[in-house]
Amino acid sequence: MEPGSQSLSRRRLLGVGAAGIAGVTVAAAGGAVGHDLLSDSPAAANTAADAVPFHGAHQAGITTPAQDRLHFVSFDVTTSKREELVALLKEWTRAAERMTRGKDAGPIGAVGGIPEAPPDDTGDALELPPSGLTLTIGFGPSLFTDANGKDRFGIAGKRPAALADLPLFPADKLDPARSGGDIAIQACANDPQVAVHAIRNLARIGFGTVSVRWSQLGFGRTSSTSRSQVTPRNLMGFKDGTRNLKAEDTKLLDEHLWAAPSDGAAWMAGGTYLVARRIRMMIETWDRTSLQEQEMIIGRAKGSGAPLTGKKEFDEPEFDTVGADKMPVIAKEAHVRLAHPDFNGGARLLRRGYNFVDGSDGLGRLDAGLFFLAFQRDPRKQFVPVQRSLARLDVLNEYIKHVGSAVYACPPGVRPGEYWGQSLFG
Amino acid sequence: MEPGSQSLSRRRLLGVGAAGIAGVTVAAAGGAVGHDLLSDSPAAANTAADAVPFHGAHQAGITTPAQDRLHFVSFDVTTSKREELVALLKEWTRAAERMTRGKDAGPIGAVGGIPEAPPDDTGDALELPPSGLTLTIGFGPSLFTDANGKDRFGIAGKRPAALADLPLFPADKLDPARSGGDIAIQACANDPQVAVHAIRNLARIGFGTVSVRWSQLGFGRTSSTSRSQVTPRNLMGFKDGTRNLKAEDTKLLDEHLWAAPSDGAAWMAGGTYLVARRIRMMIETWDRTSLQEQEMIIGRAKGSGAPLTGKKEFDEPEFDTVGADKMPVIAKEAHVRLAHPDFNGGARLLRRGYNFVDGSDGLGRLDAGLFFLAFQRDPRKQFVPVQRSLARLDVLNEYIKHVGSAVYACPPGVRPGEYWGQSLFG
Repeated sequence: MEPGSQSLSRRRLLGVGAAGIAGVTVAAAGGAVGHDLLSDSPAAANTAADAVPFHGAHQAGITTPAQDRLHFVSFDVTTSKREELVALLKEWTRAAERMTRGKDAGPIGAVGGIPEAPPDDTGDALELPPSGLTLTIGFGPSLFTDANGKDRFGIAGKRPAALADLPLFPADKLDPARSGGDIAIQACANDPQVAVHAIRNLARIGFGTVSVRWSQLGFGRTSSTSRSQVTPRNLMGFKDGTRNLKAEDTKLLDEHLWAAPSDGAAWMAGGTYLVARRIRMMIETWDRTSLQEQEMIIGRAKGSGAPLTGKKEFDEPEFDTVGADKMPVIAKEAHVRLAHPDFNGGARLLRRGYNFVDGSDGLGRLDAGLFFLAFQRDPRKQFVPVQRSLARLDVLNEYIKHVGSAVYACPPGVRPGEYWGQSLFG
Repeated sequence: MEPGSQSLSRRRLLGVGAAGIAGVTVAAAGGAVGHDLLSDSPAAANTAADAVPFHGAHQAGITTPAQDRLHFVSFDVTTSKREELVALLKEWTRAAERMTRGKDAGPIGAVGGIPEAPPDDTGDALELPPSGLTLTIGFGPSLFTDANGKDRFGIAGKRPAALADLPLFPADKLDPARSGGDIAIQACANDPQVAVHAIRNLARIGFGTVSVRWSQLGFGRTSSTSRSQVTPRNLMGFKDGTRNLKAEDTKLLDEHLWAAPSDGAAWMAGGTYLVARRIRMMIETWDRTSLQEQEMIIGRAKGSGAPLTGKKEFDEPEFDTVGADKMPVIAKEAHVRLAHPDFNGGARLLRRGYNFVDGSDGLGRLDAGLFFLAFQRDPRKQFVPVQRSLARLDVLNEYIKHVGSAVYACPPGVRPGEYWGQSLFG
């Protein structure tokens, strides 16, 4: 079935596809389901249930107003054959086009009449609406060259300079099993079942060509990417991402987010670079820290999110203001100061991270924190200097630990008929 | 602040409490937040954002229409002093009353004027509505007597016979670090941040008296507990819990769910017993199994959920029907047959489980499955015989593995002024 040739939702396919196979009438199957928010028309997302268009000049899932749930996966490529990799990218693109419209990844069971075959969709998102699903791909440094510098798929010469390996920062406690990877796919949706279903089906399709290196679930409210969204709170209980780049800042996005042809790697024009960091928070320790101390460390008021020198969340922090004790009101080591563009050569990021809680750690503590995701035009000039500054001085380091790290080149958007990474492999 | 003395939401408290402390005007703080679904009136949950009443004859979170998200925690009690345990149960109850109304667990920062103190709420659910939060407590066998049979808190004589340790079933692969525990609290909500916030704050309050043994996050769509909900799908892609006990089955609930005074442990009347099992699914293997085989194993059609002998989901399975090959249409080992009350002495369960995906397992597979939660009047007559039958014959065992297990006595509901477990300790 060609993408775009029809617009059956998962619900409709259930009626005419699977249910038919199972010997059930369409009416019977239709009667068993029902979701108030179900929409058959893939269009701009007006509600949490709607579809977000997959095609465009840029990939969706970057400036798309941040959905509430995440399933992020990093794959190792297990084949050494370029044509197998390209075939997979094509097959993934077709499945992504379907799933972001609220369809299944492929027909359940055998439309061609072979119930002996495994279903082309796992079925766990049947009856669910598109739920704002976006799927965003990125290519890691290791896809271009292996650990010995060998060109793996004939693309080593196209590796962008901006896709440099991240340096090791002071205090990094990286777990290799939670770091790196050849290909990442970020699934964001307003329903975790829809995000999980998408990643699971892409992994299923990739069986034999890629294998899951690591994956991460997350839930929302750590960054807004649109002025239509309120600033959410991270698990430290503070508003996070007040100064985030937003979809509406189109001029700033050209300056700080989107790779330009003049940046050197022509195939990346309209793409961007993603830094992913799993940041464990020592939340039990944090929770026993006084409010005063917490606010000093962050440099903002916990309740309002205002800088300690201001009254409202979006007031500009005044770093030179001193208190009665002649000390800066916003401490020299405060997070808001160290991360501020004024102290980092104007560096801005489009952050799109998620909270995570992965059960507990066997020592009576929640295994929780921030899965930091930040998109940018050149990590060497943006994430790296900011993180150097934070890693060196930030008093927050007593309460957080970077345990996973990865960087990816996210190619430009896909137009109808194209496939993910076509400008790199085509 | 006494429960019930006022009805400020988290949002209001932010205005008059934390924001005031931070030196911000109420209007400024109010202007920075905004949530369409926010409601100040704790009442029956009409929308996903509303509050579910905490008080009642039974605990909430059992027959409450299943919310979409779960954070479940099992604690070890670290104190040996009964009075400290009782004091914690009282403090937890007050915090649970507040949080289920959409308030914070306690004032953020020091309403009494001591910013040197840690906040009495962690802040990560400020501005969020009650979101249908329910908090449900259960007491494990180990709370009554330790491994040597010693009475820990003077309640050994009150241990109900129905709170028997679960037997080890064939094929169990239990991880002690994911099993057992003295006290469990189930937090269900329609927003994961609200469920996580509640468990985190209860753990914070319990510091020094209890420590987290294990915890589990889950997302919805594995069971309905009300006829107002459609039957959801588990990660095998099949409708799950079609035959579940539902809130509307009041007569069946008295028979199969609620403990009665005549059951032996008077303090448990109106309570129920909870069996929790972490069931890992080998979903990659399942996804490569043919549709025909999947449907044979379950005994239902994947699309419609109808038994293989029927046309619609709620058709009664006909176990005696044979096909052209003279074999039963619903196989002897099919899950739907082995789990059916007709083959298990009429045993019924109120299932309230959740899907989970906890990243991946380091072998390229998603660490995913079903966190099975089932409430019942007596596990010895309900869960145990059903699970014995399933563990012995179920062909599904090739695709699933029980890796965690626990059983708890969930006391009856709390009335205003009472505390969790008062009938046991009072």
